[in-house]
Amino acid sequence: MKSSSYLDTMIRKFAKLPGIGPKSASRIAFHILGMPREDVEGLARAMVEMKLNIFTCRLCGGISDGEICSICLDGGRDRSVVCAVEDAKDAITIEGTGEYSGLYHVTGGLISPLDGIGPDDLNIVPLVEKCRDGGVREVILALNPSVEGDATALYIARLLNPFGIMVTRIAHGLPVGADLEFADNATIIRSIEGRVKM
Amino acid sequence: MKSSSYLDTMIRKFAKLPGIGPKSASRIAFHILGMPREDVEGLARAMVEMKLNIFTCRLCGGISDGEICSICLDGGRDRSVVCAVEDAKDAITIEGTGEYSGLYHVTGGLISPLDGIGPDDLNIVPLVEKCRDGGVREVILALNPSVEGDATALYIARLLNPFGIMVTRIAHGLPVGADLEFADNATIIRSIEGRVKM
Repeated sequence: MKSSSYLDTMIRKFAKLPGIGPKSASRIAFHILGMPREDVEGLARAMVEMKLNIFTCRLCGGISDGEICSICLDGGRDRSVVCAVEDAKDAITIEGTGEYSGLYHVTGGLISPLDGIGPDDLNIVPLVEKCRDGGVREVILALNPSVEGDATALYIARLLNPFGIMVTRIAHGLPVGADLEFADNATIIRSIEGRVKM
Repeated sequence: MKSSSYLDTMIRKFAKLPGIGPKSASRIAFHILGMPREDVEGLARAMVEMKLNIFTCRLCGGISDGEICSICLDGGRDRSVVCAVEDAKDAITIEGTGEYSGLYHVTGGLISPLDGIGPDDLNIVPLVEKCRDGGVREVILALNPSVEGDATALYIARLLNPFGIMVTRIAHGLPVGADLEFADNATIIRSIEGRVKM
């Protein structure tokens, strides 16, 4: 690949993005080569503008165009329910379903002693303060079902216990459309533990 | 996904690139968010610079940083062998093997009457002129094994016939490491047709 140093640079940089290998990077580079100049500049601008203009929401810790994110500002949302997630990406995923109307709280990670991450490294205190100040009826813990997720969920549940708030955790079990035959043991065990009465 | 309009714009634009869906675009967007500002600007710049600085090589029709590409300029290459490919991407793929030392010629497409693409729409005449002017010993047709690829290969082979040049076509058959059991019929037929004496 030495016919163009510009192409080489572009492919090398793109191949570093997650989920993109050298082959896809090359395919994308040729696609971009065929795009109108304004579209290429628009794509480049979107990238830089996103980087320069996205802040952390002062209230929920999620991403935001300003000091406070549009979800926290939205008067139409149910402020008595807070969904705690590991990172802003998870909040956006839940938001994508269009079914959740409460607020979010981004912990910014999970408790992981092996990686040297303790509760103090996470954005948990503001959630506790929010609950102490009243108005919150339920905290839904939407943390991933890993050892770290379990530890963090347990830790938060204990902290919120004194405030008499309902603390729930999202259900872990068989994904919709999945086949029991191909599910892993951990998922099957969780789905049996979390069985619901019909 | 309404927490940031900048993020939305970025994801929407990235999801239009080949092989990238909304989920990967979102993953890439968050990755870029976490990159240092200079790296994001570097990535954006690489994209725009590539678009603005890549030209078509006057000799081979491939991509080039200047009027003539570095492969055509390279004195160390075997100028008696020309490999005809459909597009610049294919030349780069062959170049990636590091085993081919001849020149390339990019046809810029394949003959496809159904799409209204005839021989005159392709970059074939310069290849014929190159062969007529002498110095070329062999033309390797590295066109994809499709109806259009076959038609284009046949057309070029006939045009070059009067010059007494050896015209070959790359072998089509079972990929290295593939299992005969899972190969499609067309590939198996080609591999039998193209069998070589041991």
